[in-house]
Amino acid sequence: MAGNTFGKMLSLTTFGESHGIAVGGVLDGFPSNILIDFHFIQSEVNRRKTGSNIFSSSRKEEDEIEYLSGIFGGRSTGAPISFIIHNHDQKPEDYNEYKDVFRPSHADYTYEKKYGNHDYRGGGRASARETLPRVVGGAFAKLLLREHGISVRGFVSQIGDCRMPDDFIIPGSFNSTDTITGCPDPETQSKIIHLLEELKASGDTTGGVVTCNIIGTPAGIGEPVFDKLQSDLAKAMLSINAVKGFEYGSGFAGASMKGSQHNDPFIMKDGKVTTATNYSGGIQGGISNGEEIYFRVAFKPVATLMKDQETLTTSGERTVIKGKGRHDVCVVPRAIPIVEAMAALVFADHLLRYQGFSL
Amino acid sequence: MAGNTFGKMLSLTTFGESHGIAVGGVLDGFPSNILIDFHFIQSEVNRRKTGSNIFSSSRKEEDEIEYLSGIFGGRSTGAPISFIIHNHDQKPEDYNEYKDVFRPSHADYTYEKKYGNHDYRGGGRASARETLPRVVGGAFAKLLLREHGISVRGFVSQIGDCRMPDDFIIPGSFNSTDTITGCPDPETQSKIIHLLEELKASGDTTGGVVTCNIIGTPAGIGEPVFDKLQSDLAKAMLSINAVKGFEYGSGFAGASMKGSQHNDPFIMKDGKVTTATNYSGGIQGGISNGEEIYFRVAFKPVATLMKDQETLTTSGERTVIKGKGRHDVCVVPRAIPIVEAMAALVFADHLLRYQGFSL
Amino acid sequence: MAGNTFGKMLSLTTFGESHGIAVGGVLDGFPSNILIDFHFIQSEVNRRKTGSNIFSSSRKEEDEIEYLSGIFGGRSTGAPISFIIHNHDQKPEDYNEYKDVFRPSHADYTYEKKYGNHDYRGGGRASARETLPRVVGGAFAKLLLREHGISVRGFVSQIGDCRMPDDFIIPGSFNSTDTITGCPDPETQSKIIHLLEELKASGDTTGGVVTCNIIGTPAGIGEPVFDKLQSDLAKAMLSINAVKGFEYGSGFAGASMKGSQHNDPFIMKDGKVTTATNYSGGIQGGISNGEEIYFRVAFKPVATLMKDQETLTTSGERTVIKGKGRHDVCVVPRAIPIVEAMAALVFADHLLRYQGFSL
Amino acid sequence: MAGNTFGKMLSLTTFGESHGIAVGGVLDGFPSNILIDFHFIQSEVNRRKTGSNIFSSSRKEEDEIEYLSGIFGGRSTGAPISFIIHNHDQKPEDYNEYKDVFRPSHADYTYEKKYGNHDYRGGGRASARETLPRVVGGAFAKLLLREHGISVRGFVSQIGDCRMPDDFIIPGSFNSTDTITGCPDPETQSKIIHLLEELKASGDTTGGVVTCNIIGTPAGIGEPVFDKLQSDLAKAMLSINAVKGFEYGSGFAGASMKGSQHNDPFIMKDGKVTTATNYSGGIQGGISNGEEIYFRVAFKPVATLMKDQETLTTSGERTVIKGKGRHDVCVVPRAIPIVEAMAALVFADHLLRYQGFSL
Repeated sequence: MAGNTFGKMLSLTTFGESHGIAVGGVLDGFPSNILIDFHFIQSEVNRRKTGSNIFSSSRKEEDEIEYLSGIFGGRSTGAPISFIIHNHDQKPEDYNEYKDVFRPSHADYTYEKKYGNHDYRGGGRASARETLPRVVGGAFAKLLLREHGISVRGFVSQIGDCRMPDDFIIPGSFNSTDTITGCPDPETQSKIIHLLEELKASGDTTGGVVTCNIIGTPAGIGEPVFDKLQSDLAKAMLSINAVKGFEYGSGFAGASMKGSQHNDPFIMKDGKVTTATNYSGGIQGGISNGEEIYFRVAFKPVATLMKDQETLTTSGERTVIKGKGRHDVCVVPRAIPIVEAMAALVFADHLLRYQGFSL
Repeated sequence: MAGNTFGKMLSLTTFGESHGIAVGGVLDGFPSNILIDFHFIQSEVNRRKTGSNIFSSSRKEEDEIEYLSGIFGGRSTGAPISFIIHNHDQKPEDYNEYKDVFRPSHADYTYEKKYGNHDYRGGGRASARETLPRVVGGAFAKLLLREHGISVRGFVSQIGDCRMPDDFIIPGSFNSTDTITGCPDPETQSKIIHLLEELKASGDTTGGVVTCNIIGTPAGIGEPVFDKLQSDLAKAMLSINAVKGFEYGSGFAGASMKGSQHNDPFIMKDGKVTTATNYSGGIQGGISNGEEIYFRVAFKPVATLMKDQETLTTSGERTVIKGKGRHDVCVVPRAIPIVEAMAALVFADHLLRYQGFSL
Repeated sequence: MAGNTFGKMLSLTTFGESHGIAVGGVLDGFPSNILIDFHFIQSEVNRRKTGSNIFSSSRKEEDEIEYLSGIFGGRSTGAPISFIIHNHDQKPEDYNEYKDVFRPSHADYTYEKKYGNHDYRGGGRASARETLPRVVGGAFAKLLLREHGISVRGFVSQIGDCRMPDDFIIPGSFNSTDTITGCPDPETQSKIIHLLEELKASGDTTGGVVTCNIIGTPAGIGEPVFDKLQSDLAKAMLSINAVKGFEYGSGFAGASMKGSQHNDPFIMKDGKVTTATNYSGGIQGGISNGEEIYFRVAFKPVATLMKDQETLTTSGERTVIKGKGRHDVCVVPRAIPIVEAMAALVFADHLLRYQGFSL
Repeated sequence: MAGNTFGKMLSLTTFGESHGIAVGGVLDGFPSNILIDFHFIQSEVNRRKTGSNIFSSSRKEEDEIEYLSGIFGGRSTGAPISFIIHNHDQKPEDYNEYKDVFRPSHADYTYEKKYGNHDYRGGGRASARETLPRVVGGAFAKLLLREHGISVRGFVSQIGDCRMPDDFIIPGSFNSTDTITGCPDPETQSKIIHLLEELKASGDTTGGVVTCNIIGTPAGIGEPVFDKLQSDLAKAMLSINAVKGFEYGSGFAGASMKGSQHNDPFIMKDGKVTTATNYSGGIQGGISNGEEIYFRVAFKPVATLMKDQETLTTSGERTVIKGKGRHDVCVVPRAIPIVEAMAALVFADHLLRYQGFSL
C-alpha cells in the first residue's frame, strides 16, 4: 500500500536510501529451477552505473550484488530471491547545505509535506539509486523471458531536440547499437554527442526519449480492462524518476491519424496470423497480438544543475543554492536498462498471470 | 488478478458486456455518511452517452443507474456501493456477420487467443460500454473530492490535426467550456467541427487528445516509488479503450528542454510555498506539491469504419467486412467524463491512502 | 481494502444488505470455456435457504440467481461473472424497535463505532444473508474443482453438547449423509434432533461444529509462508458469521499428543507416496500432500433469542428487547454449504495460483 | 502472490532460508517519525532465541539485527524499513543425510511436489528460523500500538495434557508471568516442567497452546466481511509453523453453549459502554468492541524426534532416519513472541486501515 512493491504474480519489493547502508530488493513469485546467470545480472547493473560514460556524474560505486536467499546450487528454489547492494561511496557531507533547503524540481518539499521529514542526503528514497534494485529484478525477469524466447531492448531515440526521424513508425527496422545511446541512427547519435558536450560546458542539463521493444511475444498476454498490458507498462515507466510521458504504438501521433490509415489489417504470413502494419504497437484490447511491442518514454532534464538557482529554505526564506555535487548532464542513456528492466518485470508478470488463468 | 478491479483503498470492480444483460460496478472503501448527489451522478453518465451529439453513433440507451446497496437514507453506509445499468438497446443480430471475423484493430483476435472465445456482439467486454461503470464510480469519487475542495476537469485539446496552441504550457490559463468539446479555444473548436463533418461524410474516423486538470489538491498526496501519483494516473488513462499515450506537466515536450528552463523555482505567494512555473505538473517525486495537476491523454482513431476493410476470418481466410453498425466518427469528446472519472478515482484513492498513513 | 473481496487469482467480491434491493457478487478470474451447471448452482443456494427445515427461521426467499455477465452460450467467457439475488421478503418494519438499540452479541454497536451508523434492518451487511453470494461463488469454484476431480463435503459433527465420537481422528471413515445435518453417526443425529426441539420450546439457541473434507486433491497446492493452505482456510472460515474457531488435522487435540504418535510416516501404496496416518490433515508446510484435507469449524449459538434480554439504547439508557422476529434455533446445519463454498473458493484460488507459478 | 508478504496498509515481506546467508524482512507502510526502540526490538528477538531455555535445541545464533533502511536519526522516515539477520551457526553438513529423504511430517515432500526441489539443509524456508523476521516486524508493530496505548501479551496455557483450568473463560483474570512459559498458574507451570523433562529423557516431543490477549484496543477496528479482525488473526496464526488450530472468545467451547448464556449484555460502566461478559472475545461482526481481545493457538508436537523413524527416500525406497541434530522438545514457549508478533502486525494493519477509511 505504501507503493514499494511492483507486480502481482511476480512482485519486486525494493528498499534502501541513496546514502543509507544499502539498497536492495525481494523478488517473489520467481519460478523454481531456473538457472541463474549471475554474470548477466551484474552486467545489467553495470549498464546503469554512475560514471559509465563521460556525461554522467563521477560518483563511483562498485554496485556488487550480494544474494541473500532464494537461490541454491545456482538455480532458483521458488523462495523469495533477496539481494542487497551496499552503498560504499557515500559522502553525505556533500549534502549538508541542502539540509534546510527545498531544491527546485526535486522531491524535498513533497516528502516534507507527506512525511514530516526529507532525506537531504542525496534525496534518500527519491534518488536515482532507488532504481538499482529494479535493474536487478528486471534482469531476473529477462532470464525468465529468455526461456520463452522473449527479449526486451531499448535505445535512445531523442536527446534534447536531437530526435531520430520516424523512429517508431516502422518498428523492427531499427535496432539498438552498442554505442553509448544505443541509437540506431548514426547522424542523430553524432548530434547528441555534440549537444551533451555543449551542455556539460554550460553546466546545464537536458532530457530525452527512450524507445523500447519487446520482441518474440506470444499472442494472448495481458488483461482486458484495468490491467491492460499498456496500462501496466505505463505505470511502470511513469514510476521511473524523471519520466514525464509514455506512448505505445502510434502514440500521440496516432491522435491525428485517420482510422483508415491507422487500422492494422490482419493477413496470413508463413501460415500465421499477423498484421500488415503495427500502429497497434503489438497490443489490442490490452492483450498482446504477437507483433512487436514498442513504446516510447519521455524524460525531463536533470533537476540538479551546475548553475546557481534561487529557491526557499524549509522555513520559507529565499536563498540561492550553488551548483555542485556529483550529477549527470543527461540521465537518458543510463535510463535504458531501467526502462528495459521495468518492461521485463511487467511482461514476465503478465506471462505468469496468463499461465495461472489457463488452468 | 484478472484485472477488473481498480484502486487500493477505494476500489472499483466492474463487470458486464456490451450486449449482455447489464453493466455495473462495486465501489468498495467509500467512506460512510457522505451525502449522495444522485442527480449529479446520473448527469455524469449522461455526458458520455452515446448519441450525445451528432458525431456519435446512434445507439440510444437510457443508461439509468440502479443502486443495489451501500446507500441508506441518502447517505453512504460504508458498505460496498453496487449499481447496475441495464442494456436496453441491444441488437446483437447487427453483429452476426462478425461472428467468424477478426475486425482490424479490435480485440477479437487477442480475446480469441487469450480466452479461446471472443464476444462478437459488439466487442463484449472490450466495448466502450465497459467504461460506463467507471463514470459512475468516478462520480462517487468526485463527490468525495468535492468534500475536500478538489475538482477534476477535462477538455478536448486536439482532434485530428486541429490542436490548441500551447495548451499545457500555461496551466490554469485555459478552462473547459460548455461546448461539445469543452475546448477553451474558439478557433480550434471551429476547426474541429469542420474536420468532424468532413470525416463523417467520408465514413472515416479520427483521434485526438484530452487535457485534464485536478484543481485544489493539497500537497503530500501520492506514494514515492512504484505508486507515484503520475504512475497511477498513467495506468488509469492507458486502461481506457483507444488510449495510446499519457504525459503530465511538460510531458514529451520536456524531453527537449534544458534543466535551467524546466526547473520550477519555489517562491512564497500569499504566505504559501508555491512554484513560479509548473512544468512539474503539480507532482514532484510522485507526490502532489499543491500546484495544479495537469496531464494529456492521446486517443487513436475509432477502429470501426463506415468503409470496407480487408481482414481474416477466424479460420484464416481472407474476407472483407462492410462498414455498418452504430459508431462514432470520433470518441474523444465522449471520453472527457471517462478521463475525469479515472482521474478522480486515482486521486480519491491516494487521498484515502494518505489519511491511512498519517496515523 | 474494505474487505469485501476474497481470493487472489480467483476473487469473489460481494455486496448487498439484508433488507436492501439485492445481494450479489462478482467472481473474477474464473477460467473461460467452463460449462456452467446452473441447476447445480441453484441447488447449492437452496441448501442454505432460510426455512429449509423446522429449526430455522420462517423468512421465505425465492433466492433465484440472476446472472448479469461473464457467461455466453452456457460457458464462462473469462470475463467477470456477476450475479444478483433480489431480496423479496423484506419486512424492515419488523426491525423498527431495534433502531436505537444495541442488540447483545450482534454487530450494531461495533458498526456504529466504525461507520457512525448501523443498519438496524436485520443487521444490514452483518446479516447471514451476506453469505448467499459466497455460496454462489463457491458453487462456481466447485464446478472448477470438479473438472480436476476434487470435491468438498461438509457435515455437522456437533450441535450443543451432542458430539460425534472421534469424528476427525480417522478421516475418510465417515461421510456426510443426506439427513438435515449430514451427520454420519445416526445416534448423534438423533440426539441433535432431540436437543433442537428442546431449545425451540424454550426460545433458546445453540452452536455446533461443521467438519469439512476436501477430497481428491493433488500434492503441491498452497504457498509456504503467509498464504499456507491452512492459513487461507482459517481466514475463510473465521470470516463466516458466528464462527469462533478453526482446526485442521489433529487440531487442538494435537496439542496434547507426542511427536512419536503424531508424525505421519510416509509409505508407498499402489506405487504412490502416501502417509500411514493423516494427523497432518493433508497439508504439510502449508502445501497439500495429496491426502484428504479435513478441518473443523466451531459456531457460537445464534445471538437472536425468543427470550427477553437487557441491553442499552444507542444513547446509553438501559432497556429490554423482546424476543421476536424470524430466526434460527441453530444455524449450523444451514452453514454447511457456506463452509463448503468458502473451502472451494480457497482451494480453487490456490489451484490457479499453482498453475501460475509453474510456468 | 507467492505468499511471502503479510498485511495491507502495514505489510511485512520476509525472505531467507534456515541455512542460507541471512533471513530478513521489509516492513512497508510504517508511519514516519516514530521513535525506534532498538533495544526493545532486539529483546523481542532474544525471547524466541534458540537455546533460550533447557528444553530447546542447542543451536546458538547471535541473531543480531542489521537495519538497512527506513530509519534516520533514530526515527522512522516513512520509507520501507529493511533488516537482515545473518545465519552464523550454519552446519548444513548435519543435514546431508536428509538430502534424499522425506522426513515424516516435515515439508520435504510437499516442497518437492511444488517446486521440484527441497532444501534439505534444515528445511530451508520451512524452518522455524523463517519466523525470526516476523518477530522483528511484530516488534515494530508493537512500537506503533504502544503509541496508542495498546499491548499484546501471550502465555502458555497448555503443554501436552497439562492445561490451565478455564484459562479463557474469564479474560483479564490471568496475566502472563516472567517464567519460561509465562503461564499464570503455578501448578500448571510445575506440571509442564516435569512433563518436558520426561519427554527430553525419552527423545520425544509434545505440543501445546498459547493464549494471547490484545489489551487497550479502541472500538471500531476491523472490516466487516472477509477481513474480519478474527479472520486476519486466524490467518496470521495458522501461518506459523506447527499451528493446528485457532479459536477466539468462547471458541470451540462456545459450540456447546446456549445463546442465553453466551450473549454478552451491554452495560454502562464508568460512563462507558462495555459488556458484562466477554464470550465475544472483544470482537463483534468482525470489528473490535473495545473489550479485551483474546484467542488461543494450538501447536502440534515438534516433528523432529531423537528417535528413529521409518520413512521413504525421494525415490520411494523405505529407509530409517536417525534422531539427531539440534531440536526442541517443545516449541510452544518459544512461540509466544511469534504469536504476539503476528497479532501485533494484524492489529496495527487494521488500525491503519481504519484511519484510512475515516477521512
